[in-house]
Amino acid sequence: MFQTFTVTARPEQGPPRLAALRGVLSAQGLDGFVIPRADAHQGEYVAARDDRLAWLTGFTGSAGFCVVLEGVAGVFIDGRYRTQVKAQVDLAHFTPVPWPEERLAGWLKAQLPQGGRVGFDPWLMSVAQIDEAREALAGTRIDLVAVDRNPVDAVWTDQPAPPMAPARVHPMEFAGEAHADKIARLAEGLRADGTTAAAITLPDSICWLLNIRGSDVPKNPVMHGFAILHADARVDLFVAAEKLGDLCDHLGSSVRVHDPADFAAHLEDLSGPVLLDRDTCPVAVRDRVAEARLGRDPCALPKARKNRVEIAGMAEAHLRDAVAMIDLLAWLDDQAPGSLTETQVVTRLEEARRRDNALQDISFDTIAGTGPNGAIMHYRVTEDTDARLEDGHLLVLDSGGQYLDGTTDITRTVAIGDVGPEEKAAYTRVLQGMIGMSRLRWPKGLAGRDIEMAGRMPLWLAHQDFDHGLGHGVGAYLSVHEGPQRLSRISHVPLEPGMILSNEPGYYREGAFGIRIENLVVVTRADVPEGGDAHREMLCWQTLTFVPLDRRLIVTDMLAPAERDWLDAYHREVREKVGPRLGKAARAWLDAATAAI
Amino acid sequence: MFQTFTVTARPEQGPPRLAALRGVLSAQGLDGFVIPRADAHQGEYVAARDDRLAWLTGFTGSAGFCVVLEGVAGVFIDGRYRTQVKAQVDLAHFTPVPWPEERLAGWLKAQLPQGGRVGFDPWLMSVAQIDEAREALAGTRIDLVAVDRNPVDAVWTDQPAPPMAPARVHPMEFAGEAHADKIARLAEGLRADGTTAAAITLPDSICWLLNIRGSDVPKNPVMHGFAILHADARVDLFVAAEKLGDLCDHLGSSVRVHDPADFAAHLEDLSGPVLLDRDTCPVAVRDRVAEARLGRDPCALPKARKNRVEIAGMAEAHLRDAVAMIDLLAWLDDQAPGSLTETQVVTRLEEARRRDNALQDISFDTIAGTGPNGAIMHYRVTEDTDARLEDGHLLVLDSGGQYLDGTTDITRTVAIGDVGPEEKAAYTRVLQGMIGMSRLRWPKGLAGRDIEMAGRMPLWLAHQDFDHGLGHGVGAYLSVHEGPQRLSRISHVPLEPGMILSNEPGYYREGAFGIRIENLVVVTRADVPEGGDAHREMLCWQTLTFVPLDRRLIVTDMLAPAERDWLDAYHREVREKVGPRLGKAARAWLDAATAAI
Repeated sequence: MFQTFTVTARPEQGPPRLAALRGVLSAQGLDGFVIPRADAHQGEYVAARDDRLAWLTGFTGSAGFCVVLEGVAGVFIDGRYRTQVKAQVDLAHFTPVPWPEERLAGWLKAQLPQGGRVGFDPWLMSVAQIDEAREALAGTRIDLVAVDRNPVDAVWTDQPAPPMAPARVHPMEFAGEAHADKIARLAEGLRADGTTAAAITLPDSICWLLNIRGSDVPKNPVMHGFAILHADARVDLFVAAEKLGDLCDHLGSSVRVHDPADFAAHLEDLSGPVLLDRDTCPVAVRDRVAEARLGRDPCALPKARKNRVEIAGMAEAHLRDAVAMIDLLAWLDDQAPGSLTETQVVTRLEEARRRDNALQDISFDTIAGTGPNGAIMHYRVTEDTDARLEDGHLLVLDSGGQYLDGTTDITRTVAIGDVGPEEKAAYTRVLQGMIGMSRLRWPKGLAGRDIEMAGRMPLWLAHQDFDHGLGHGVGAYLSVHEGPQRLSRISHVPLEPGMILSNEPGYYREGAFGIRIENLVVVTRADVPEGGDAHREMLCWQTLTFVPLDRRLIVTDMLAPAERDWLDAYHREVREKVGPRLGKAARAWLDAATAAI
Repeated sequence: MFQTFTVTARPEQGPPRLAALRGVLSAQGLDGFVIPRADAHQGEYVAARDDRLAWLTGFTGSAGFCVVLEGVAGVFIDGRYRTQVKAQVDLAHFTPVPWPEERLAGWLKAQLPQGGRVGFDPWLMSVAQIDEAREALAGTRIDLVAVDRNPVDAVWTDQPAPPMAPARVHPMEFAGEAHADKIARLAEGLRADGTTAAAITLPDSICWLLNIRGSDVPKNPVMHGFAILHADARVDLFVAAEKLGDLCDHLGSSVRVHDPADFAAHLEDLSGPVLLDRDTCPVAVRDRVAEARLGRDPCALPKARKNRVEIAGMAEAHLRDAVAMIDLLAWLDDQAPGSLTETQVVTRLEEARRRDNALQDISFDTIAGTGPNGAIMHYRVTEDTDARLEDGHLLVLDSGGQYLDGTTDITRTVAIGDVGPEEKAAYTRVLQGMIGMSRLRWPKGLAGRDIEMAGRMPLWLAHQDFDHGLGHGVGAYLSVHEGPQRLSRISHVPLEPGMILSNEPGYYREGAFGIRIENLVVVTRADVPEGGDAHREMLCWQTLTFVPLDRRLIVTDMLAPAERDWLDAYHREVREKVGPRLGKAARAWLDAATAAI
């Protein structure tokens, strides 16, 4: 299904639903209830059935939560959604709350000075969330109470059924490691740590571990379910049998399939220390485990360290995806300024990607922001905002595809007609940041926070900056946003060979223009060059993304020789790697677009 | 007193002292005792009386500790001192222990599997040290026991008396803020935090707070003592009256002077929460305070944020100091390779500094390492190691002076004769790191760890690095190593305007050569340039050190245009600022040394 541009918010539906919910709360003796955007799997996308926050409030952002009390309903939204929330909810009934500046506990303390019982669905809230809130509420008379049945579901009479999309094998040619081998090495890790089992609730972890993929949510090819990995290398998988079809052969005898309803009982049967992921594990899981040990999902790091086959697949997916991007960019250059709108670009790009049958889905809704819309970091064009690409605009185009062999995520910023000098200077700095990180080599053991500034320095020197991290992890035919590694000031996770991240500096001038450039890169062991310190282990990047950078926006004089060399070498590689895959017209465009600077 | 080069280690004195100490321990029912290098004030230098570690073991390094048990005496030393310790202690009686790889608690567990009572002097060990060790020893039968009288002092029959150097006023023209005003604003901070008092045990904090200086230890112009700052802006100062002389007039009526022996009793009299510095407060202080609140010495940050007068003083001290450095460098260039040794350079440099009567002392023992000695990061030349400056050597010269208006710390690396291409390439990279940090501008709120890599990137790109932090804080006519801010991967303290740090990247090839370049720099608010983001608060550096960088060692082609511009502008500023202060010959040398590259 192609990306849609319809405005889905129906603010008028909120108030009656809110009233119905309050009725249930009152009958259950609750003074309030917390409705998170998340489902039990804490993913970026939720199934229609789990979109309780949007159903109740009208707010469709990808993060946030609502707290319904008797007299007020606060909608907690982060900086990305301050404007959007006002258009989507009925402000007479819902009160936007800036989050995380205001946090759940602090807000409750202010709203309920006399105390109260505030319910939450323990399957939808993580241990970290509830522990933090309870700690902050210590000494007050406010109780956070886990409820057995979600009261939103009780009033949502036409709530969709859980997704039942069939799962499929993720074959060895793309996975690179048999799931039995993954299970064996993770089980060994559990034994070494003295744990008897790990409860796994993240769908991408389960899919990675068992070499399967699903279609339960849009964009991310995951199957919803739960799993218990035992230290003796058995796996209990809790997923509706109809999703699995004949996958049981693939799974083999060490993986036993159970009805999802049985997950809770199995948790209660576990003895000995059970590893739970502190940040994402539902409270309901912790509450059922006799001896919980909070730590990190055991799949997280092994999944983040891509193997050779996954890296080769990601590289191939990126070359395939580059053909679509280059076709789009070549076409775009042929259109007169003022003749296109953002949605036309989005649709044309998706058509270009779909021309290759390998595309499974786009990996997220394409961001196509021209002129001032480019300055909105998480812009998603709708019929209401669809702007025309005018002469002098910059167009920020951030998109990606899901392929069986890999996931792509690429951003290019393109000149529409004649662009002004400030835009070009800022573009050049953003490019210098991207190049600075791409060229980097760093001592093994450092985390994203230790090296992130390499992507910001050129902007800093001009008293400029951007307000997002430099990069996020990316899955291999899995989530386009994947942890735990990040290129961010808050990331303590050491970078390791095989980790794939985005390198995406930007610059945003509100009301004027935006710039972002994004390549995906893989952490790689660095060879010791002549004169280097042989005793030092260092890491570097291998680039996956090969699509031209807009030469018309580059102020050549601003580049240092090493930056020019990098750029010319990159463009040469784009030409060599992607050129042979292109049609004649795109090939000609590419030759010009990748000429030495 | 000029720097000396005598070898002071007398390894043969250790064993009989060790035997005597073991006798006392046994009589007191102790199975062991911890002898730290530190005194009660946790400074870098200790008075002769407090040099218990050196007296007992022979080891004279500036950090470490010894743990004496019945059958073994471990000398814990960090990476700098692995070689030195072997020459200084009798290895038949003392066992070097690599620290911090091995820590006190782990070592005790291995040595005392049956448990035991290990004593320590609670005035010499900090709360952080003992708490960490006790936590790690939980569940063992090893007790860390505070003793009333130090058993080392009991056997040290000719232990020197405590230092009694007279203190003096640090006048407003250098301090820039009256001590009454400092006391008032710090007391306000205590009240705002709900604490009744702060116990201050760091001599440089006390000296800063009261605008006094002393001479109780070498190199650092501090007076030993203790203080209690009350939330009502009274100060109890515990220091021998004979040190103060007529300083009582300066101190005023809100500062009451007591005998140091009364400090303990006053601590016991305090009620309400008392702020103690977690990292440096002696256990004995915490144990006497009814309600201890562990935090940070309230003087630390205010002292680190130098005021305008202090910055102006530091700048002037650096120009004065630059005259001595340039005289030395000009003279050095006149000497034939092979004609000098390291000690001659050290002495000549100190003579040059002392030629100006303003010099109070050198700020630390000069490091002058030529050829392979340059690769020893904390090299201190002695008669035994004194090497000749040979043709092709690099000479690392790291030194500084204490002046009434400021403290300097400067490192230059100088070519002796014809230097090889690898040395020049590495020097150029170190210089590029120094320039990269000097040119930096960064968002307010970042700490040293967030920006430190700017000083390493050029080395990293060549698969090179160095194993020390990029920079340390520096006091204003106080300690040359001053916290809490650092340019280091471990520093979380946000950089603030007025903080002074060193910017000193290096490169060390063991057995071959060393390189280090060091300027002092002040954190400064950055003006918003044309095109910059006016809403962003950013910080930058103002350079204090103005001494030429050796142009003969710079591979010009490796520099980016912006780096060349920085270098030429820096050298121009050196010429303009220091040139007029020089004699004719040095002036001529300077003109050549600062010519555009």
